[in-house]
Amino acid sequence: MQEPLMMHINYTVYLQDDHLILVDRRFLPRKIIRYTCQKYEDVARGIEDMVVQGAGDIAITAGYGLYMALRDIEDQPGTTVQEGKIYALKVKERLVATRPTGFHLKALLNKVLEGIEWESGDWSQQVLRMIENAITKQQLRSELTGNWAATLLEDGDTILTHCFPGAAILYMLKKAREEGKKVKVIASETRPYLQGARLTAWSTSELGIPTTLITDNMAAYCMSQGMITKVFTAADRIAMDGTVANKVGTFQLALAAAHHKIPFYILGYGGPDSRCALGQDIPVEVRDPIEVLTFQEQKITGDKVEGFYPAFDLTPPYLIAGVITDRGIISPDSVAKYWSLPKVNVVAET
Amino acid sequence: MQEPLMMHINYTVYLQDDHLILVDRRFLPRKIIRYTCQKYEDVARGIEDMVVQGAGDIAITAGYGLYMALRDIEDQPGTTVQEGKIYALKVKERLVATRPTGFHLKALLNKVLEGIEWESGDWSQQVLRMIENAITKQQLRSELTGNWAATLLEDGDTILTHCFPGAAILYMLKKAREEGKKVKVIASETRPYLQGARLTAWSTSELGIPTTLITDNMAAYCMSQGMITKVFTAADRIAMDGTVANKVGTFQLALAAAHHKIPFYILGYGGPDSRCALGQDIPVEVRDPIEVLTFQEQKITGDKVEGFYPAFDLTPPYLIAGVITDRGIISPDSVAKYWSLPKVNVVAET
Repeated sequence: MQEPLMMHINYTVYLQDDHLILVDRRFLPRKIIRYTCQKYEDVARGIEDMVVQGAGDIAITAGYGLYMALRDIEDQPGTTVQEGKIYALKVKERLVATRPTGFHLKALLNKVLEGIEWESGDWSQQVLRMIENAITKQQLRSELTGNWAATLLEDGDTILTHCFPGAAILYMLKKAREEGKKVKVIASETRPYLQGARLTAWSTSELGIPTTLITDNMAAYCMSQGMITKVFTAADRIAMDGTVANKVGTFQLALAAAHHKIPFYILGYGGPDSRCALGQDIPVEVRDPIEVLTFQEQKITGDKVEGFYPAFDLTPPYLIAGVITDRGIISPDSVAKYWSLPKVNVVAET
Repeated sequence: MQEPLMMHINYTVYLQDDHLILVDRRFLPRKIIRYTCQKYEDVARGIEDMVVQGAGDIAITAGYGLYMALRDIEDQPGTTVQEGKIYALKVKERLVATRPTGFHLKALLNKVLEGIEWESGDWSQQVLRMIENAITKQQLRSELTGNWAATLLEDGDTILTHCFPGAAILYMLKKAREEGKKVKVIASETRPYLQGARLTAWSTSELGIPTTLITDNMAAYCMSQGMITKVFTAADRIAMDGTVANKVGTFQLALAAAHHKIPFYILGYGGPDSRCALGQDIPVEVRDPIEVLTFQEQKITGDKVEGFYPAFDLTPPYLIAGVITDRGIISPDSVAKYWSLPKVNVVAET
């Protein structure tokens, strides 16, 4: 079976003729539209406009943006190291400002900037190698996280998920199937962008997993009918107090799961953000209300109605049964434990 | 100020040239499309396809269907009373089968059939008078319920509502404004049909009330930010144990409200269904999954994905702060109290 398109970032974010191609996720799965970035500003706009989504994939995409920016400046004759550094910082600030809630973007760009040996030249090629390394590492992280998550699954489980929680959910389902566990998926559509319908349900069904789509308001009813045995979502950022920021709707599902005593797990990939002490420190991105007031460019309400679009919400640790990372499963009450778990490191550090 | 279109059933459901016109609620507010019913079967299909919605309005519309059926049969020479009765029963069964969760439709048709004096002839005119009477009564019920609800509002409240809870919410907001209370509305869009966006937010904003639209997954986040002080939804049916069946998503909102200690009220109009002992006795209508898998006729997911569309859910009484009826506000733990409250009766019984 061919891998679902969403299982590897290389399938939807890649260089071609030195342009960055983003397979526009807003139109998947009905249309394959390639969004071409010629300059780093195109990359920034693509991230802002949700051509690409998911904290990890956004970080990699932004990394390519930095690569393109340095490629353009180093081609100009007489650019000094000092000018290169100043330009790189400016580009980083622009890219970091695109989506404030996830922390991977800023973390990756900082790491890359620190890793450049400026005096050696070929800055963009250095960045490119680090981005390629980060992709390999992210893919491994997804697989390891998925494998840990699969240990929580039992034959006959029906899991609910929300938004697109990244490749880990696909690795989890693949692994469970290899272990002979029959698992079904219920995906909530995730308004307003319908990532749950368009990316998650599509991907899990393409993987051969029986998949049912519901609207975001049906989860509690399905839980009350015994249709859901476990919930798994991703996290755009995990604070050190165990609070999870994820796509808006996650908190509401966690409340419904708690009421029905259904365990609620977080696919936490590379662990918490050590620089973020409290959930309340996480900035919740508020997007343009027009995205709530329209659907596929059609206005869905009257002209006097305002809209409000918080893109994320915060789920407190007491609603979470476990945070599943590439290093193992940790309690949301002690997320710092992540760094004491053995590291699986088959690739070099970026 | 002109009344919002949704404030009176006569504005969207009316006879014209002896056809029944339904202003198609699936296209409001962007398009005013009139759906013309020439036969009772057209009425049945209009109800099934959600051209009209809301338990009370569906009942009235079905009543018009019965009127049209009897008008057609009594025009045929030689129709006996016995034939009329048998036909009326058949038509009733067809109309009752359109939407099983609400109980008003069946209750009204039963009442009308019992009220016909068959030997007097002019059956359809008798039915028409009873339907017109029921409309007057329903409108009064909405106003009385809205007025009771307004007593719960305080200056500065922001209320959340879901789906279109009928005219009572408009009367409530109008009354509160007359009493000098400034109240704002947050409406959840109510997927898949977006009644919250299209009917509720539009109507409250047309009434001059500051109205904000959110998607169904944002309510808990808004509650956590202190943006919502009270929740009001309608009920398609209230069982004698205080369980409320209403548009799917209501239960999830009630759970989120309970977590945030925000009072959750039900606009209960004419009270509980005395024939329905337990919440679990209420049939929850499961509609065609295609309605979840598409949006405005566009498929939103992959072809291998199934859909599930329970149109209603059940909210247990312990999550409800009060049931607001035309006779007063009652506790969900003792809904039978409804019948001991003084009746406000300015119109004759249907």
